[in-house]
Amino acid sequence: MNAEIIAVGSEMLTHKRVDTNSLFVTEQLNNLGVEVTAKHVIGDDLERLAGTVRRALGSAQFVIVSGGLGPTEDDLTRDAVAMALDRRQVFNPAINEGIEQRFRTMNRPMPEINRRQAMVIEGAHVLSNDRGTAPGQWIEEGGGVLMILPGPPHELKSMFTRQCLPRLQRILPPLAIRTLELRIAGMSESELDQAIAPIYKQYENPVTTVLAHNGDMQVHLRARCPSEVEAIALLAEVGGKIDVVLGDRIYSRNGDPLEAVVGRKLANLHATLVVAESATGGGLAERITSVPGSSAWFLGGFVTYTKRMKIDLLGVPAEILEQFGTVSAETAEAMAIGARRRTGSVWAVSVTGNAGPTTDGEQAPVGMVHVGISGPGETKTYHRHWPTSDRVRVRAFAAQMALDLLNRKLSQ
Amino acid sequence: MNAEIIAVGSEMLTHKRVDTNSLFVTEQLNNLGVEVTAKHVIGDDLERLAGTVRRALGSAQFVIVSGGLGPTEDDLTRDAVAMALDRRQVFNPAINEGIEQRFRTMNRPMPEINRRQAMVIEGAHVLSNDRGTAPGQWIEEGGGVLMILPGPPHELKSMFTRQCLPRLQRILPPLAIRTLELRIAGMSESELDQAIAPIYKQYENPVTTVLAHNGDMQVHLRARCPSEVEAIALLAEVGGKIDVVLGDRIYSRNGDPLEAVVGRKLANLHATLVVAESATGGGLAERITSVPGSSAWFLGGFVTYTKRMKIDLLGVPAEILEQFGTVSAETAEAMAIGARRRTGSVWAVSVTGNAGPTTDGEQAPVGMVHVGISGPGETKTYHRHWPTSDRVRVRAFAAQMALDLLNRKLSQ
Repeated sequence: MNAEIIAVGSEMLTHKRVDTNSLFVTEQLNNLGVEVTAKHVIGDDLERLAGTVRRALGSAQFVIVSGGLGPTEDDLTRDAVAMALDRRQVFNPAINEGIEQRFRTMNRPMPEINRRQAMVIEGAHVLSNDRGTAPGQWIEEGGGVLMILPGPPHELKSMFTRQCLPRLQRILPPLAIRTLELRIAGMSESELDQAIAPIYKQYENPVTTVLAHNGDMQVHLRARCPSEVEAIALLAEVGGKIDVVLGDRIYSRNGDPLEAVVGRKLANLHATLVVAESATGGGLAERITSVPGSSAWFLGGFVTYTKRMKIDLLGVPAEILEQFGTVSAETAEAMAIGARRRTGSVWAVSVTGNAGPTTDGEQAPVGMVHVGISGPGETKTYHRHWPTSDRVRVRAFAAQMALDLLNRKLSQ
Repeated sequence: MNAEIIAVGSEMLTHKRVDTNSLFVTEQLNNLGVEVTAKHVIGDDLERLAGTVRRALGSAQFVIVSGGLGPTEDDLTRDAVAMALDRRQVFNPAINEGIEQRFRTMNRPMPEINRRQAMVIEGAHVLSNDRGTAPGQWIEEGGGVLMILPGPPHELKSMFTRQCLPRLQRILPPLAIRTLELRIAGMSESELDQAIAPIYKQYENPVTTVLAHNGDMQVHLRARCPSEVEAIALLAEVGGKIDVVLGDRIYSRNGDPLEAVVGRKLANLHATLVVAESATGGGLAERITSVPGSSAWFLGGFVTYTKRMKIDLLGVPAEILEQFGTVSAETAEAMAIGARRRTGSVWAVSVTGNAGPTTDGEQAPVGMVHVGISGPGETKTYHRHWPTSDRVRVRAFAAQMALDLLNRKLSQ
């Protein structure tokens, strides 16, 4: 069972607007077991729109067209759909009376052009609009259904929920949808995919999606079954197999971000954390403190952006900076130890690296990052070199790496 | 001259993701005088994608396909375009070597599946990817051009700017588009619009857009004229009128963000800056250090997320915290003075506030922020109370406020 969504309006083709109605419609359809297989945004162009509608009806059981139902000449959806279906349009006096009524409520006369909104495609069921003037239409054609909905999101949502949803539920078989959201750190997208593709490819249900953003990976499993029990059992089966392969690379199973997972572990241990940042420049602390209530376990941090600050605030020995350079395991180690010592924190994490875009006379190459983790008993350092001079990405990767390493330490 | 944009990937058909690449591509094409007449999002489905590509080529001079160039079986863009154009694909050893090289840099073997990324459609010009493994392709077909670009936005943007733009400029007739980008701080979006709408509404050209994001306001003027001289003169005329109304609320006229403007002023003054953050939790330092080369004037910062840290790291007197509370003008003042004293910096900026979502037993209401600015001669404090408990927004507003205040001080 699949659907295509068509958003109509030239304003949706500018560089500042995205169609968001389709997100709502997609979620609603997915919950009914209907997949969206294509989305289109078409400008105010009769032929192009009619062609798109015709093709969509040829390849999807459900076609949802939103927008272009206003009273002006630019509003071509009704005409385009009539053309695509080769049906006439009929003036509907009841709709016209309703629109006139709305205008009377506002103490204004109905402009003549609004009569266009009372035109209904032959054979369509009218979907009343409780939020605006333009009614929608539900049109059955060759075993499929085409829905015409208004463009303004609050009108569309209300109309879909009140009138399309009950009709669709009558047509479609019952379906339980459950999702499992795994979050993974410490591997690249292709490493992750290579590891789990042999598992998820065996299943058409659940549907598996792998998402990657600045070193943070997510695997979404979405099971659709006739009953909830079956959906949960299916997720447990496939999720369990992925668990075996990924092990502690999975840091969260409920959608929590890494900083929240780390925070909960620290809180459970009654432990505290400080950070000492160079390359990430405050970004690591910012991520940690984005968690509400983080003051319960996060004491604070040092952003030491010069050698002098590393020496003065963290007590990094000048000789270490001279001998090994600012971006080195030795400096990362001394930063973490210093941050811990100066604050009395149980844990300290340090980050030093070269985020680029240029080396700034620094010895270490762009993209090189060292992380130090200092805790009860020992201090360890780690390094990675990302092949990019994209400052934003190196900084984001580095913060992710630091949180991932701390999270593993806290799990030991 | 028109274009269609096709975004590929089933993940773009979920209810959580929108395609934003098309906004960037649309802006670039509009700048060249090319209108976008349709956009499509197509899942990982070979036939459907090939059909969409074929039809787009039939109705637009330029077709831009983004995404689906990864190494996995799901990545079908190359195959679909080859099918649509009825052309073969050829293995390109140079691309393969480049991908292998990237993996070597990361000290990892290239997975076998990445070889797929070295397949090139017959007759295509390869567009190299300086941010990732997947190369793009530029394919001329029947008087039109089809461009295949990678899905990750930073890869797509870099490739389009470096390689598609110059090629398009050679093909298309000259159109002088000049923009003036004013950045404004210290007023709300509605205050700004009320101030300048009487001016910009008089002009259809340039087109004026007002953008607001977390307290940072931008006014974009975009003039399109047959010649550069005319475009510049038009911008000078309208920009001049806006200047008169906004005065020093405008902090930048070249698109530079506030942190870059502050940085340049500090560099010119040979002055240095430190920050002492509580509510913003590192976000202020993160913004400041997002400017490449900021180590020339930014010494570093303190993230003091507990009273103890404010006392120990910044020397805030315990009595001040007790008497006035953590979120107070007195604490902001003591934090700024302490940060300056402990580092020898010329300037220090402090932020303390309650970012919410709850008060955490703090006396100050959610949304209350105090900023301290300490420099040669004096220390001043400022406060604002935003009527929101949105943690992300309060933190962003607070960082913006601190930078805006410092910027004004540096201009005096």
